[in-house]
Amino acid sequence: MTYIVLARSTARALFSGGRGYHRQFSTAVIARQLENVDATHHHGGSFYWRKMSSLPEIKDQHHNSSEEKKNEDTTTTTTTNNNNSVVSSYWGITRPKIQREDGTEWPWNCFMPWDTYHSDVSIDVTKHHVPKSFADKFAYRTVKFLRVFSDLYFKERYGCHAMMLETIAGVPGMVGGMLLHFKSLRKFEHSGGWIKALLEEAENERMHLMTMVELVKPSWHERLLVIVAQGVFFNAFFVFYLIWPKAAHRFVGYLEEEALISYTQHLKAIESGKVENVPAPAIAIDYWRLPKDATLKDVITVIRADEAHHRDVNHFASDIHHQGKQLKEAPAPIGYH
Amino acid sequence: MTYIVLARSTARALFSGGRGYHRQFSTAVIARQLENVDATHHHGGSFYWRKMSSLPEIKDQHHNSSEEKKNEDTTTTTTTNNNNSVVSSYWGITRPKIQREDGTEWPWNCFMPWDTYHSDVSIDVTKHHVPKSFADKFAYRTVKFLRVFSDLYFKERYGCHAMMLETIAGVPGMVGGMLLHFKSLRKFEHSGGWIKALLEEAENERMHLMTMVELVKPSWHERLLVIVAQGVFFNAFFVFYLIWPKAAHRFVGYLEEEALISYTQHLKAIESGKVENVPAPAIAIDYWRLPKDATLKDVITVIRADEAHHRDVNHFASDIHHQGKQLKEAPAPIGYH
Repeated sequence: MTYIVLARSTARALFSGGRGYHRQFSTAVIARQLENVDATHHHGGSFYWRKMSSLPEIKDQHHNSSEEKKNEDTTTTTTTNNNNSVVSSYWGITRPKIQREDGTEWPWNCFMPWDTYHSDVSIDVTKHHVPKSFADKFAYRTVKFLRVFSDLYFKERYGCHAMMLETIAGVPGMVGGMLLHFKSLRKFEHSGGWIKALLEEAENERMHLMTMVELVKPSWHERLLVIVAQGVFFNAFFVFYLIWPKAAHRFVGYLEEEALISYTQHLKAIESGKVENVPAPAIAIDYWRLPKDATLKDVITVIRADEAHHRDVNHFASDIHHQGKQLKEAPAPIGYH
Repeated sequence: MTYIVLARSTARALFSGGRGYHRQFSTAVIARQLENVDATHHHGGSFYWRKMSSLPEIKDQHHNSSEEKKNEDTTTTTTTNNNNSVVSSYWGITRPKIQREDGTEWPWNCFMPWDTYHSDVSIDVTKHHVPKSFADKFAYRTVKFLRVFSDLYFKERYGCHAMMLETIAGVPGMVGGMLLHFKSLRKFEHSGGWIKALLEEAENERMHLMTMVELVKPSWHERLLVIVAQGVFFNAFFVFYLIWPKAAHRFVGYLEEEALISYTQHLKAIESGKVENVPAPAIAIDYWRLPKDATLKDVITVIRADEAHHRDVNHFASDIHHQGKQLKEAPAPIGYH
């Protein structure tokens, strides 16, 4: 942790130009303070985990006596989830207790405080990449073709449209990241950070979905549609990315441009009162660090900004391929929100 | 960033028991100092990125005039990689300049300073899960069966063995993480942090490989073997995890137990002088925050500790399934090193 605190702030110190030095220095002090703690928790690893245990200890059945003695201190921890169902384990693993800055307990397991961020809503949401190459045109027309059906299906059911959109939007980043990961393993070569960048995109889209489901409950036929759509889209995009990444990234870029149009319509509908501007769900307030009284409008605004960032990253990735280069030749924009 | 610094240190403050308060307070001060910067960089997003640009600006060809005006400030940035090959892009994305705490430039794109850590080498590397259930026995025997061939093939070529092992070890985490990601999208449900935990495992194994290739250069027939092995193992494990995750996680747990045996032999060979204790590669020194004069022995020691942690996580995951629960019911051990 020590170094994470220091490194992160050092990085940020640079971003802030002149005013960097002061903060850099004072964070270094914190870093040194943290160092001792860090040492404690590492050299007494098992103790560190036991200390976190939040429930009465439970002996694990699987356990054999020889280990029993050896691992006395690690063998009897328990973990709990929000529903208080208990899973015992002698692997000495349990969830660390984490708090918000206001001291209240961190309620989420699907994302940690350090995964949260302020969305940059100043990003241009109207920017469009004019199709030039054959790959561009293929990607653009495919997206526009698919758009017709989604408009026919959803019409003006904005919330439902957004929710279904996110179940699909979470696919390309994961497929791309996975394929680059395996390529890196297979070719014994670095990724230039693109694995992480694409997986970050996938996780961010998944968080959009986790937010939308708080607002819209999917019906059985929507659930069925998602299962079918994912089965088809996953396999199609897998092959697409494998054989033609240049067009695959451009395709995602255009998909995001369409998402931006949809979310802009969604916002207009909220402003015009067509869609009720309900309070933002708790998960959204924590994930995007929104004010306590944030509304649906704020949520859609930050989600739209996220999509604009994904649009940029994917068009950028396609640009790299268009110049006959590999992604790893241009460092990936990690943490570009 | 503000909040990352604060949240991480708040979490750690709890880990440190009594001494937490003092640090928590002082970090809060830093957090407030960072806040202003954070605001600056977010509200002037495009400027934030332009400021990072480290090369003369290059006009992009694709660009259409209507956008030209609109995005004057974001449209003309350039990115560079370590080989100084330039990729121009009008998406306003370039790699932030990041420094080590000693002020030297951060040389890696594949991992950032905040991905690095001190490995907990105090973990018990001899712990063994005694097979009880049918799934356990199936997983154990499969691993032991595969072990025979790897021993026959590699004999005492420890470095080569380790390198090849890591190309395979990077597969299960990615497959598991991906399948859980798609399950989360498909079922509109949370993951309990297991997506991230498994992807972290995959990335960590990939970093082991990136380290090993600095020490051992793969021959053409080893490269060929890896391509074939990955093709087979990826598909096999994909199906395995899909239909029988309980056994799949146990299988990985036992795979890690075997890796621990191999790395322990590797360490013995270094101690006995059979394998030369060469200096640690730069990438390993940065990733595990090793001393500048670290050697191969230090590297193998931390890698072995990592494998022990993966063993625990996967046996734990299998335990959860053995109790008829879903992974999401027990919060995942994120950042368990």
